[in-house]
Amino acid sequence: MEKPSLPKGTRDFGPIVMAKRQFILDSIKKVFQKYGFQPLETPAMENLSTLTGKYGDEGDQLLFKILNSGDFLKDVDQQSLNTKDSRLITNSISEKGLRYDLTVPFARYVVMNRGEISFPFKRYQIQPVWRADRPQKGRYREFYQCDADVVGTDSLICEAEIILMINEVFKSLKISDYSIKINHRGILSGLAELAGAKDLPAGQAGNETALFVAIDKLDKIGEEKVKEELRTKGFDEKSLNGVFEILNKQGSTATKIDLLTSSFTDSEKGKKGLADLSAVLQLLKDYGVSEDHVEFDISLARGLSYYTGCIFEVKINNVAIGSVSGGGRYDNLTQAFGAKERLSGVGISFGVDRLFDAMEELKLFPEEAQISSTVLITHFDAESQRYGLKVLQTLRSNNIAAEIYPDSIKIQKQLDYANKKMIPYVIVIGSEEVKSGLLAFKNMKTGTQEKIGIEDILNTLKSAVGRKQ
Amino acid sequence: MEKPSLPKGTRDFGPIVMAKRQFILDSIKKVFQKYGFQPLETPAMENLSTLTGKYGDEGDQLLFKILNSGDFLKDVDQQSLNTKDSRLITNSISEKGLRYDLTVPFARYVVMNRGEISFPFKRYQIQPVWRADRPQKGRYREFYQCDADVVGTDSLICEAEIILMINEVFKSLKISDYSIKINHRGILSGLAELAGAKDLPAGQAGNETALFVAIDKLDKIGEEKVKEELRTKGFDEKSLNGVFEILNKQGSTATKIDLLTSSFTDSEKGKKGLADLSAVLQLLKDYGVSEDHVEFDISLARGLSYYTGCIFEVKINNVAIGSVSGGGRYDNLTQAFGAKERLSGVGISFGVDRLFDAMEELKLFPEEAQISSTVLITHFDAESQRYGLKVLQTLRSNNIAAEIYPDSIKIQKQLDYANKKMIPYVIVIGSEEVKSGLLAFKNMKTGTQEKIGIEDILNTLKSAVGRKQ
Repeated sequence: MEKPSLPKGTRDFGPIVMAKRQFILDSIKKVFQKYGFQPLETPAMENLSTLTGKYGDEGDQLLFKILNSGDFLKDVDQQSLNTKDSRLITNSISEKGLRYDLTVPFARYVVMNRGEISFPFKRYQIQPVWRADRPQKGRYREFYQCDADVVGTDSLICEAEIILMINEVFKSLKISDYSIKINHRGILSGLAELAGAKDLPAGQAGNETALFVAIDKLDKIGEEKVKEELRTKGFDEKSLNGVFEILNKQGSTATKIDLLTSSFTDSEKGKKGLADLSAVLQLLKDYGVSEDHVEFDISLARGLSYYTGCIFEVKINNVAIGSVSGGGRYDNLTQAFGAKERLSGVGISFGVDRLFDAMEELKLFPEEAQISSTVLITHFDAESQRYGLKVLQTLRSNNIAAEIYPDSIKIQKQLDYANKKMIPYVIVIGSEEVKSGLLAFKNMKTGTQEKIGIEDILNTLKSAVGRKQ
Repeated sequence: MEKPSLPKGTRDFGPIVMAKRQFILDSIKKVFQKYGFQPLETPAMENLSTLTGKYGDEGDQLLFKILNSGDFLKDVDQQSLNTKDSRLITNSISEKGLRYDLTVPFARYVVMNRGEISFPFKRYQIQPVWRADRPQKGRYREFYQCDADVVGTDSLICEAEIILMINEVFKSLKISDYSIKINHRGILSGLAELAGAKDLPAGQAGNETALFVAIDKLDKIGEEKVKEELRTKGFDEKSLNGVFEILNKQGSTATKIDLLTSSFTDSEKGKKGLADLSAVLQLLKDYGVSEDHVEFDISLARGLSYYTGCIFEVKINNVAIGSVSGGGRYDNLTQAFGAKERLSGVGISFGVDRLFDAMEELKLFPEEAQISSTVLITHFDAESQRYGLKVLQTLRSNNIAAEIYPDSIKIQKQLDYANKKMIPYVIVIGSEEVKSGLLAFKNMKTGTQEKIGIEDILNTLKSAVGRKQ
């Protein structure tokens, strides 16, 4: 029989990894809830009519499609089959696909439940998504997304709260050295105007888009290559120098805002972007919150077809991992589903896999981020085991996670089990303990052992568990 | 544009439903962890070679299959295509499927990670599964399973702990009137021997299986129809009367055990079943736990191809919903993957959808089982809103879930928002409050309102939140 294996790009999460992932997800979830976001879950399968055309041509290619049940070939005409054209056949044999992100299902949910939802609607959603991408280090075909969005309000308070939430998530994960980069779509548009780029109507790629796409790569390929690319797109040397003078501006946020204010005298979009950005920073002051981690980054571009206002990206400093969180304001969530009213919104998404890798590298997972029993009861014989059952019951009724070794085997093997499972305390019961009621209580970390009664054990454990919380 | 819709048999879980589902899942998860079970997650997609042949022919038909990415028809030969035989083509165009249950992926995980796992391995797993079943009331194509299994030990302590866990889950859900039905595969085999049924080798359906299948339907179709069915399978009247005399036996567990002990003098399997069952009941006594909810039900049969030892099923009394939990011991988890060592295990599975329906019917969801802010800050103008941001910050830094209405609109609309979102407290801020620092604090349930300082508000909220916990 062939050895079983996992599909390419997918993973099992065993107990140790799961415990750490749950630590991250629970921390994020708690913050979302503290800020008034409510949970939503949508099905893994969506109709292909919901998914197709929402992620561009490349995205459509990366959708996992589900074969129709039963005799799926029945209604496919032989002529199409003869062409052996997979694209032609796909729609006839598949009408469902796996969720590609959480935003499109959220938009679908909002359109379908418009009447019941009270806006502004603050929802969070933590679920896996699937992409038929070529797997590589850090890129999987199944991975979790962790999103929070507010829709139905233009208020910049939402942008400010995104910054507060990021701060709070990182505080609870004990990540201290990070930057929240912020920019605004309008500022980029202003920059494009300065460079003489033409903003062509939606659907046509004007060289405004070319400028954004190139700027987005600045981090990776550097200024010279970006300039080269832009020259081929028709930007002249003077424009490029103007743009890079601004992009390269060092200094405080105030310095950058001053420079842009004087540059954007003729750009309505640029002025709007600057005004929004300044308002968000002022709101942070009104909250009484420090701007320490916030960094105005004029070259931050992100997925621009989508965002229309402020954009965010979070990087952990001194860790060679890309951004661990990102988001921004979009103009019209439900447009793609033909909804008539405009529904502006702003959202943030945390990348669980990258946060996990960064926390591993920085050794930030606390010891409590393992999910295991606090105590294992071990025993020398059947009689001691039976005695142990009552002890076990006492521990559990005091809300202490505990287990008894289920078989009668050598005590050393039972202790090995405790070690492997990282159980911090062991109670050893033999005939002497059964007689005296004084139990051998072993701290597996320090190796110390004492003979004490169950009351003392309970007190020790309660204070140990208390310290952890 | 077509209105978006959900695929048949799938559901969105909006905030209110999600909060209640999370209440159930968190309760179960806590109990699993308290008993030493550790979390596992496996991918939604499995290779079809892992899934196929594990659930019988019918199960294979119900697997959701994923279309291969890219040009999936490329390597399919034209001759096969010409037959238009879907079954013939499936394997050429699909190599992955969606998880059908949590047990097969668990077995696959154990086989693949045998070397690292320390046995006995106690894992829990809470994830959705997918079945291309005909959707109907209470039956979905995507639904959660919630399993805990111990593998690598024959110890009956595991069976006893399953009963303890069920009790504890129901206690935390405040479900008080329920029955844990218990039976043993060996007892059913003993019954079959008494009836003269032949236990044919695995793979062939002997009339032992026929007997089990028929008994399983007793609840639904009644004694007469079951007898009718068994007559057609070749059971004679005398055997049937003997079997039903036992099945219909009323009285205590001890009475039933006495009857079976005298009936099973010649049945090794029957004797083993009785001995195991009695040992489990004795273990409950050793734990010092009452047997109140445990009911020995000789007619409990469950999915028998799978189980080999004790079997369990839990019913909530006075609610017209089938079993909400079930499980049992199986002989060899990893056999299907060709593993050589025998790995016996025992597991329990909770049905989240049915528990949900039962708790709705019994009105058991506590008010706290809604996830929403505790306080909404409302405001009359921009100045009051700005003042509100600091109040908001104070609430949150005291770990109180709170939000501010993001837009400047009529106060009544802000209050409507609080009502719809079931936010229990509202702070109203106007110019007077900004001046005095005394805030209008409104209890949305009682309608009472008082003007108090932030310290008093914090104290009220902390004691209110404290009461909930």
